[in-house]
Amino acid sequence: MKVLVIGAAGMIGRKLCERLLRDGRIGSRDITDLVMADAVASDLGAGVAFARHVVVDLAKPDASMTLLASRPDVIFHLAAIVSGEAEQDFDKGYAVNLDGTRALFEAIRALEHYEPRVVYTSSIAVFGAPYNGAIADDFFHTPLSSYGTQKAICELLLADYSRRGFLDGIGLRLPNICVRPGKPNAASSGFFSNIIREPLAGREAVLPVADSVGQTHASPRATVEFLLHAATLQSEQLGARRTLMMPGVPASVAEQIAALRRVAGDAVVARIRHVPDPVIMAMVAGWPAHFDTPRALALGFRAEACFDDIIRTHIDDDLGGTFVR
Amino acid sequence: MKVLVIGAAGMIGRKLCERLLRDGRIGSRDITDLVMADAVASDLGAGVAFARHVVVDLAKPDASMTLLASRPDVIFHLAAIVSGEAEQDFDKGYAVNLDGTRALFEAIRALEHYEPRVVYTSSIAVFGAPYNGAIADDFFHTPLSSYGTQKAICELLLADYSRRGFLDGIGLRLPNICVRPGKPNAASSGFFSNIIREPLAGREAVLPVADSVGQTHASPRATVEFLLHAATLQSEQLGARRTLMMPGVPASVAEQIAALRRVAGDAVVARIRHVPDPVIMAMVAGWPAHFDTPRALALGFRAEACFDDIIRTHIDDDLGGTFVR
Repeated sequence: MKVLVIGAAGMIGRKLCERLLRDGRIGSRDITDLVMADAVASDLGAGVAFARHVVVDLAKPDASMTLLASRPDVIFHLAAIVSGEAEQDFDKGYAVNLDGTRALFEAIRALEHYEPRVVYTSSIAVFGAPYNGAIADDFFHTPLSSYGTQKAICELLLADYSRRGFLDGIGLRLPNICVRPGKPNAASSGFFSNIIREPLAGREAVLPVADSVGQTHASPRATVEFLLHAATLQSEQLGARRTLMMPGVPASVAEQIAALRRVAGDAVVARIRHVPDPVIMAMVAGWPAHFDTPRALALGFRAEACFDDIIRTHIDDDLGGTFVR
Repeated sequence: MKVLVIGAAGMIGRKLCERLLRDGRIGSRDITDLVMADAVASDLGAGVAFARHVVVDLAKPDASMTLLASRPDVIFHLAAIVSGEAEQDFDKGYAVNLDGTRALFEAIRALEHYEPRVVYTSSIAVFGAPYNGAIADDFFHTPLSSYGTQKAICELLLADYSRRGFLDGIGLRLPNICVRPGKPNAASSGFFSNIIREPLAGREAVLPVADSVGQTHASPRATVEFLLHAATLQSEQLGARRTLMMPGVPASVAEQIAALRRVAGDAVVARIRHVPDPVIMAMVAGWPAHFDTPRALALGFRAEACFDDIIRTHIDDDLGGTFVR
């Protein structure tokens, strides 16, 4: 099977590629060709015979045509301008997140006798307040950002191109991915990861919101499992509604901290400092926090069972099994 | 006030322009310039000093720029490739319904110090079965046609461009427009109008579905009122959710026929012939029939009170006040 990963250098793209390189297969099918595409180069999979990199700018015409030369059976489309940048640079956000994705779908459509599985990562940014309790797959598109608008539009395109038989698409709305490895970043949602990752590394972390704030989380490892499961799912099981809200572990910040205490002890928790930030508090109030995901669960998608497991996954996958006590 | 009507030669566009030409104003503001744009020429408003026509192909680059030369205060954007054609000609549907609309929004955005009211007509085609009772503004986008997909995408763009302050948009999802004047057309929903219009004109009409089939209707006159009301609404009343489901008169075919009997008598009703069409019956099963429209009602949008009034409106507006007994 031939696999194309677009956005291979991103946080999830990298973890997906590491997994594909390690397994050499998806489900029961061996990978004969793995193309890792991104706007920036990467050293991942050096020396692996079936793997290669392509540096590409999705906003450029014909970028998608180049990527499809080998007619991949499965395409993971993870590439995106993130929400903050899409809000700051209106043209760039639409050029990459909407036009880049549409150009990919059009390039697929242009090829004869070709209907690949396309796994598209969408976002809970397609939702915007006010909410009315838990959000399910059938909550309506109410984005309050250009990024969320672009994701919602691509969900609609994915469904239409699938309905017309041009491609075989599945969209996944990911919950908050936690614990994100790497440095604290400027994303307003970063604190959900920061308050776990930084203390485990022996560093202080700032909590900018009340500990009653809730969110739904899945680990990067669970997210990679979502993508792999979506790659092999029978699309007849989906019907016309091609985008699924993925499951996760609902946890308030207080519950996250309690889990950290159970897994790592009081000394680690003591590294969290509460410094309220009114700007972030206001933003958080507009985010959906609770999701019902009966469709995804019925189709076999699984997240961690509890937040303790999410912390353990981070320690195993990103910290070599240990942490700073 | 300067007004631009895009799609001025269509059924609703024509009725809107007739009204604007007659009134010479919207609300309390006089119309100083009325541009009637369409892909085909029209003779409407000949000799009216403030009115002129522009023949334009929205799918062409710069078409929108031309239309905006006078910087209209209110833009009614009614132009679209209809659902059947958008389904048959994938490229044309996307080129006009999506790209044409986006090009209009981009052209508006490109002008400095310019934030016109844009009234955009969307459609109940943004919805697709299965439903769960009555459909309200917050039912989610589930189009089962390329036309519905294009309308849903433009609703999202309208909201994002409004949120960013590039334009001041209001989207109206129109119910079934009844009674459509003119000849019976190939639209599968045409029978809702055919069974009223044709018998009133002394001709036989075919009813292809069971008389238990329901739909929500508004007259062309009520639809023009929706558009005019939307042109003058204070957008602060809308918040971030810029598209509204318009009200209408819910009626089954049996109720439509009973109203026709009350208004026009048995002899007219006797011209309806029931010839079941399994293809149309199957399509109808996928259409939404009942809508809750509390937001639109609260904002002052009004349809007819009963189906009898819809028939009377047709007799007054399209038949010169009389019909074939």
